[in-house]
Amino acid sequence: MHSSTGHPARRPSGRQPEQIREIRLIREYTRHAEGSVLVSFGDTQVLCNASVEAGVPRWLRGKGQGWITAEYGMLPRATHTRGPREAARGKQGGRTLEIQRLIGRALRASVNLKKLGEFTITVDCDVIQADGGTRTAAITGGCVALVDAIRHLQRDKLIKTDPFKELVSAVSVGIFKGTPVADLDYPEDSGADTDMNVVMTESGGLIEVQGTAEAAAFGRSELNAMLDLAESAGAQLFAHQREALGLRG
Amino acid sequence: MHSSTGHPARRPSGRQPEQIREIRLIREYTRHAEGSVLVSFGDTQVLCNASVEAGVPRWLRGKGQGWITAEYGMLPRATHTRGPREAARGKQGGRTLEIQRLIGRALRASVNLKKLGEFTITVDCDVIQADGGTRTAAITGGCVALVDAIRHLQRDKLIKTDPFKELVSAVSVGIFKGTPVADLDYPEDSGADTDMNVVMTESGGLIEVQGTAEAAAFGRSELNAMLDLAESAGAQLFAHQREALGLRG
Amino acid sequence: MHSSTGHPARRPSGRQPEQIREIRLIREYTRHAEGSVLVSFGDTQVLCNASVEAGVPRWLRGKGQGWITAEYGMLPRATHTRGPREAARGKQGGRTLEIQRLIGRALRASVNLKKLGEFTITVDCDVIQADGGTRTAAITGGCVALVDAIRHLQRDKLIKTDPFKELVSAVSVGIFKGTPVADLDYPEDSGADTDMNVVMTESGGLIEVQGTAEAAAFGRSELNAMLDLAESAGAQLFAHQREALGLRG
Amino acid sequence: MHSSTGHPARRPSGRQPEQIREIRLIREYTRHAEGSVLVSFGDTQVLCNASVEAGVPRWLRGKGQGWITAEYGMLPRATHTRGPREAARGKQGGRTLEIQRLIGRALRASVNLKKLGEFTITVDCDVIQADGGTRTAAITGGCVALVDAIRHLQRDKLIKTDPFKELVSAVSVGIFKGTPVADLDYPEDSGADTDMNVVMTESGGLIEVQGTAEAAAFGRSELNAMLDLAESAGAQLFAHQREALGLRG
Amino acid sequence: MHSSTGHPARRPSGRQPEQIREIRLIREYTRHAEGSVLVSFGDTQVLCNASVEAGVPRWLRGKGQGWITAEYGMLPRATHTRGPREAARGKQGGRTLEIQRLIGRALRASVNLKKLGEFTITVDCDVIQADGGTRTAAITGGCVALVDAIRHLQRDKLIKTDPFKELVSAVSVGIFKGTPVADLDYPEDSGADTDMNVVMTESGGLIEVQGTAEAAAFGRSELNAMLDLAESAGAQLFAHQREALGLRG
Amino acid sequence: MHSSTGHPARRPSGRQPEQIREIRLIREYTRHAEGSVLVSFGDTQVLCNASVEAGVPRWLRGKGQGWITAEYGMLPRATHTRGPREAARGKQGGRTLEIQRLIGRALRASVNLKKLGEFTITVDCDVIQADGGTRTAAITGGCVALVDAIRHLQRDKLIKTDPFKELVSAVSVGIFKGTPVADLDYPEDSGADTDMNVVMTESGGLIEVQGTAEAAAFGRSELNAMLDLAESAGAQLFAHQREALGLRG
Repeated sequence: MHSSTGHPARRPSGRQPEQIREIRLIREYTRHAEGSVLVSFGDTQVLCNASVEAGVPRWLRGKGQGWITAEYGMLPRATHTRGPREAARGKQGGRTLEIQRLIGRALRASVNLKKLGEFTITVDCDVIQADGGTRTAAITGGCVALVDAIRHLQRDKLIKTDPFKELVSAVSVGIFKGTPVADLDYPEDSGADTDMNVVMTESGGLIEVQGTAEAAAFGRSELNAMLDLAESAGAQLFAHQREALGLRG
Repeated sequence: MHSSTGHPARRPSGRQPEQIREIRLIREYTRHAEGSVLVSFGDTQVLCNASVEAGVPRWLRGKGQGWITAEYGMLPRATHTRGPREAARGKQGGRTLEIQRLIGRALRASVNLKKLGEFTITVDCDVIQADGGTRTAAITGGCVALVDAIRHLQRDKLIKTDPFKELVSAVSVGIFKGTPVADLDYPEDSGADTDMNVVMTESGGLIEVQGTAEAAAFGRSELNAMLDLAESAGAQLFAHQREALGLRG
Repeated sequence: MHSSTGHPARRPSGRQPEQIREIRLIREYTRHAEGSVLVSFGDTQVLCNASVEAGVPRWLRGKGQGWITAEYGMLPRATHTRGPREAARGKQGGRTLEIQRLIGRALRASVNLKKLGEFTITVDCDVIQADGGTRTAAITGGCVALVDAIRHLQRDKLIKTDPFKELVSAVSVGIFKGTPVADLDYPEDSGADTDMNVVMTESGGLIEVQGTAEAAAFGRSELNAMLDLAESAGAQLFAHQREALGLRG
Repeated sequence: MHSSTGHPARRPSGRQPEQIREIRLIREYTRHAEGSVLVSFGDTQVLCNASVEAGVPRWLRGKGQGWITAEYGMLPRATHTRGPREAARGKQGGRTLEIQRLIGRALRASVNLKKLGEFTITVDCDVIQADGGTRTAAITGGCVALVDAIRHLQRDKLIKTDPFKELVSAVSVGIFKGTPVADLDYPEDSGADTDMNVVMTESGGLIEVQGTAEAAAFGRSELNAMLDLAESAGAQLFAHQREALGLRG
Repeated sequence: MHSSTGHPARRPSGRQPEQIREIRLIREYTRHAEGSVLVSFGDTQVLCNASVEAGVPRWLRGKGQGWITAEYGMLPRATHTRGPREAARGKQGGRTLEIQRLIGRALRASVNLKKLGEFTITVDCDVIQADGGTRTAAITGGCVALVDAIRHLQRDKLIKTDPFKELVSAVSVGIFKGTPVADLDYPEDSGADTDMNVVMTESGGLIEVQGTAEAAAFGRSELNAMLDLAESAGAQLFAHQREALGLRG
Repeated sequence: MHSSTGHPARRPSGRQPEQIREIRLIREYTRHAEGSVLVSFGDTQVLCNASVEAGVPRWLRGKGQGWITAEYGMLPRATHTRGPREAARGKQGGRTLEIQRLIGRALRASVNLKKLGEFTITVDCDVIQADGGTRTAAITGGCVALVDAIRHLQRDKLIKTDPFKELVSAVSVGIFKGTPVADLDYPEDSGADTDMNVVMTESGGLIEVQGTAEAAAFGRSELNAMLDLAESAGAQLFAHQREALGLRG
């Protein structure tokens, strides 16, 4: 495990350990989607488009409930060096599938699917520019797009009760050079000893905790330090979501 | 063939027959690509990222020349209704392949590949929002991104001579309700009798002419009327490209 | 653009600039298809089989109209050197998809789909031997196979009105060593400055015009010279189709 | 097992039990392939193109020997009803793969691969029209194309010794309504109790014996009756091959 | 053909020419499948799981009959050196498809599909360890699993009559160094001149005979010697199947 | 979050909350692999084969270090109802890819890749029978197979120093009906509120923590209760691994 020096490591960005990047949530970013949000966590930019379609997947039919799913993609040159286009390679990679399954699970936690009716909402999260934390930005922005899509259904009187339960947001935390830090950017992410993605509900619950030791195992106290940082970051993210959506804090 | 009424049809957008949409070319739109341009033809928005990589495809190796290629994609909800993600379907559709082959041929016309040296420039054209004319916007914006990528190679002293030949732009023209019109938007595109994409060089040459009768065959005079509109639109597009790139007119 | 020498270039085949190759259209070439035509443009040989199937694609169901589509393939050793078998590679290439989309659009122009009833006619165009102009031969021969398939439907009393509108044919034209020429064979095709495929109706309309500058841009006068050649070649192709089908000229 | 009636069943074609269909072997059928043979077994027509390429598959490199392989395909409308195009489906079916593996093994038996040198000969067998027995026609015609390809290598002085060992041919035999019959056509093939493909060398050896009970098991005596028919048919096939190749009988 | 020495070749395993390996058939090997058999032919181990599902493939619907099919796979390290995982490569190889088609045909011969009712039984044959003869072990073990699955249907009163016809087993035979031998293991298989898989019914019929000359053609007398060995091996395999199933001999 | 009742829920298996299932680790389960372990966590059985190959993936070449990777698969009828074979579907699903990436990361934590030399060890984890916890069984058994493969390299003097660092094991923990429980079986897994997979090193470090709220969010205290159970289970798993490997405790 890590030997902490007492003095926190200097982050490449100059941020304080607990300091998250500048968050922006721009709604109605594109015209066609029922919910469309461009989310930025610093230089990480993800376009989250929520699309409403009547009907549900085959295995849910006739149960009177709805479904929420997500797809994730990265533009080939969102990254420092160009990556192959997944459509041209003929398949989505394991990382992509893993991330879009995570986003889908996270967003389903914010909705009561039984009240959604037989509608499917697909949240497409496409990374325009990547600088670490694309999946946590996608969840945080995707939740705002999802709320807009639900409002759209309500405005069109397609559903009568409100299926929205509570906001969901996500942040990455990690151990960088022995110091727990919040919202890792790419230089930190690639150099971190441990990296953890935390998905939270506004009421204080945990939806997903995915911690990975990249270089060295981590202990329970480090895990707790990271979760503390995630909680604090979560509070800020929920405030940004509320503000973007015009919800009272 | 068409029966023209004498009175030009009213375009859904209220534009004059020869009037193209508002053109925007925003350079350095993302951070990582050697050339990155967001191009808008009205509500059609395409992100064109030009990436430089050392080396050329296998069949060109050892010939001392470079290569320029393009890839095209559309975000699933760039359109009115969500389309399936090509990466998830496991293949690029015929329309996608046709378009990216067209963009590649068009952009190669603006460069002397022999002077490029053994570099490959890939221009990724990803449609953020679609309202007709995505391929012509992609060529027009892609050419600006390509020029930036070439400048990058020159700035880094990786090439010594200037491989840039001349600007290339593209516009769609068509016959809408009997009237030849320039730069069709989606409502026109889906209702047009004939649709033609024209790729031009600044010196007045034609690179590609692809005219398709959607509903009724067209005659030579209609073809000529469309080409006249394309020439006039081309002049405006070249001016926008020059301005964006800071080139003297 | 091209500098014409005044003296027309000598074509590798010794043909005159406007001279098309020997055209053959052999009907009932195979036993099973409702329409089966082996078309030859000189050494280019394409087998066009039109198959009638009850029903239409999902997106057309219930509209009371029919559908015509085309598929294109090339036997691996139709060409000078063996190409990979697309079935073994696991996908059709971009060129193949582009060509079969073109053939389908062209053939649909010769039929009133509303009168066809809910039948689908698939025209398979398989290149037995390639020497340039495979797509134009496929359209020209495919139209004859299509007429036979429609006659088959009429003979079997499956449709009551005649959905056939008019003949469609296609020819490639180009600029070879500065001279406009008709019906390019492979040596010309690979050396041409410009190559254009023109799809025409017998009544003089244009269905598709696809011109590509391979080596140098082309001007409006060259475009017009090529279209003149296409019109003249079209007249001969329609005569061949009429003769093959036993139609009065 | 079968109850034979004493009276041989009448074959749909009116042929005698031991009578094979009319065999045709047309050499130099297409221009480009080093060996090109159109083989007909009655209405079954297969185009066999043998292509010579320098080099061998990776796992054979440096062993100083050659390789012979085969690919098999069926045009979509070679059959009574149109089948899906394998290139469009994105994979070759199990039947296709099974057949092309059989053809390859059969053809390798006619050549001394060590004397072939580091060349690969690919024999493409494409079924133009199917009426039963396509794989046996492909082997019989493919062997003639292979001999032509080898002669091509010898004529070009690319190999010095003759790698050809002996002719290989193939025929299907079966039990149709209780009677052993040779060279089944499609109506027999689909109604046979047992179907067996036999690949033979001219010197009387067996290369492959693949017998399948379709409806009822078969006994040793039936197996022997079928092999007797195959031997007799083989003699005729070898004579056809010799005649086509201008070899003395 | 082979020159036999008079003295039979010594088999690598020290077995007599007619001696098959130790056969084991362990029923109820896994918990979930309706029939689950681990079959061993010496070191070759195949897990055969028979799964019952209501319904039949589309092309059989409404005919009141059932269907039996098989799938075959090999664990990547079942073999001496690791082979690629077919799921990761994205397709099943030709050998796999060929084998699973063979297993399916063989197993269908043991059942009266009309009496099975509209159920599909899928027999998955997964090779845990390979030492030659995996397909014959799969058929022999798969038939026992199939019987268990049928009993399961009868026990649950889902079918009323017994669709089981008779046992089916399979063995490989070959010519190894000039001597006919039964049940080849891997060292023999890779060195054999000829290899033949024989599928038999208990009543003495042949279902499949697939003989392949690997190195040299074989004659009728060798074929007969191999079939004699297969019959003798079959008798032993049926006895093992009967014992495993608790059937009277 | 959950309302705990004070009385722990009765587990379907009757186990105590902290009680893991019977663990078995059978080494040398198959013959060919350098390490071959059948691991059982109760009715969950996974065959873990570790294969050594010379060389490393392209991106690691020339760095003088080794690589460890894992592949995961499930036999189609390992589960209650048959699942489709991934090789037949043509791709590995997202769940499969996610699991095999996790196993690979986990196993790499037990080895010093720099000391491994340019060898790749692939650990194939194939689920023979599934009853929950297949990924944790795969990691626990895969680590034992990995140690055997490393010993194989040492015995063959292919590496000189010992790259093994420490044992790695994994267990699933969760909240079942309000009670934290260890090593969930399938009935618990499908009914759990929260499910967490924990990968640990013997020295007490955490490698991966992946907690997912299936039905309701979880709090920090629940997370801690689950981690306590994982630590305790880990101690037992390490003891089983040590015993299987003949290591002193």
